[in-house]
Amino acid sequence: MQSNVEPQVTTRPVSVGGVTDSPGTLLPASPPLAADPNAPDDLAAFKHAFRRHAAGVAAITTLAPDGTPVGFTATSLASLSAVPPLATFNMARSASSWAAITAAERVVIHMLGASNRSIAEKLAGPHLERFSGDHWHPGPYGLPILIGVTSWMIGRIVERVSVHNNAVVVVQIEGGGMGADDQALLYHERTYRVPGAAV
Amino acid sequence: MQSNVEPQVTTRPVSVGGVTDSPGTLLPASPPLAADPNAPDDLAAFKHAFRRHAAGVAAITTLAPDGTPVGFTATSLASLSAVPPLATFNMARSASSWAAITAAERVVIHMLGASNRSIAEKLAGPHLERFSGDHWHPGPYGLPILIGVTSWMIGRIVERVSVHNNAVVVVQIEGGGMGADDQALLYHERTYRVPGAAV
Repeated sequence: MQSNVEPQVTTRPVSVGGVTDSPGTLLPASPPLAADPNAPDDLAAFKHAFRRHAAGVAAITTLAPDGTPVGFTATSLASLSAVPPLATFNMARSASSWAAITAAERVVIHMLGASNRSIAEKLAGPHLERFSGDHWHPGPYGLPILIGVTSWMIGRIVERVSVHNNAVVVVQIEGGGMGADDQALLYHERTYRVPGAAV
Repeated sequence: MQSNVEPQVTTRPVSVGGVTDSPGTLLPASPPLAADPNAPDDLAAFKHAFRRHAAGVAAITTLAPDGTPVGFTATSLASLSAVPPLATFNMARSASSWAAITAAERVVIHMLGASNRSIAEKLAGPHLERFSGDHWHPGPYGLPILIGVTSWMIGRIVERVSVHNNAVVVVQIEGGGMGADDQALLYHERTYRVPGAAV
């Protein structure tokens, strides 16, 4: 995410594709197909929508070919299928962990809880410091297991789909473990939170 | 998700890949690579982990080739990239909306808020009833826009990646609109919730 991009927002009613839309839209005045893909209007719509979306927080780890542990905090983890058990996460191919993800056979996907906020921040911080500390230990295949998470899954990477400078990674789950009971960790409006009241 | 599958859970310490793991794991006693991909252990790990993960709730709509509105509630929506603005969602290729998604050029991705619980339930219910009511109107390109959502994005499908009987769909956002301010809608532990306290 490029946090330094703050495009202008258009809030007047606009006509797109021959249909007059309701007030308050961010649609460009010209048809979307003609728009520059990097123009502010599509990015503004994207940023406003994802600001209103809450996401669970996970952490992905693996080993670089030289055995160095690597990993990162992810808000893109999603279930793809239960049988076979498949999960996906998204990442930038410019990320520090990408080279390891391209070479790795397996990853560990950790679900983070309220007590893991420091792990979430550590694995989103400077990449050389992400595994300095006693918050992890080597697990199956020597892969880094983060300590104190609510659960983790080990899986084999079955697809890496590049789209522009990003990638969708598909993982087939092979096993895992559970940690202590804890509330799920969320990221919403640039703040770590726990789930609240039922609606 | 197959909710009728309730595998047994192994909680004794096990040895995998030559490494003795900590107590409480769900790893199979045999190496994961040798395991049947549909065996209970991998599915148990997957199910336990995703039960501990909270997800934001979105709704995806499009038009079938005959002009019929179709759509579904999704907990797999994720950001892939901001420049260009790309989002992903996952679905089963056995879903009622899949045929329309394979044919459609564009979809609308709606972010749901606390006041949209009934829309979330409607679009997860019987597919012939999902658009019976006044909770939507035709928007750009005639695509169904759900009314009262916190925001929506219209985008062009740029990739459909099939994995087993499922698919990852990649959408490039072209524009969108914002609704009234509302709390984000979450799905966690089979319950619709709003985000709670910061941690």
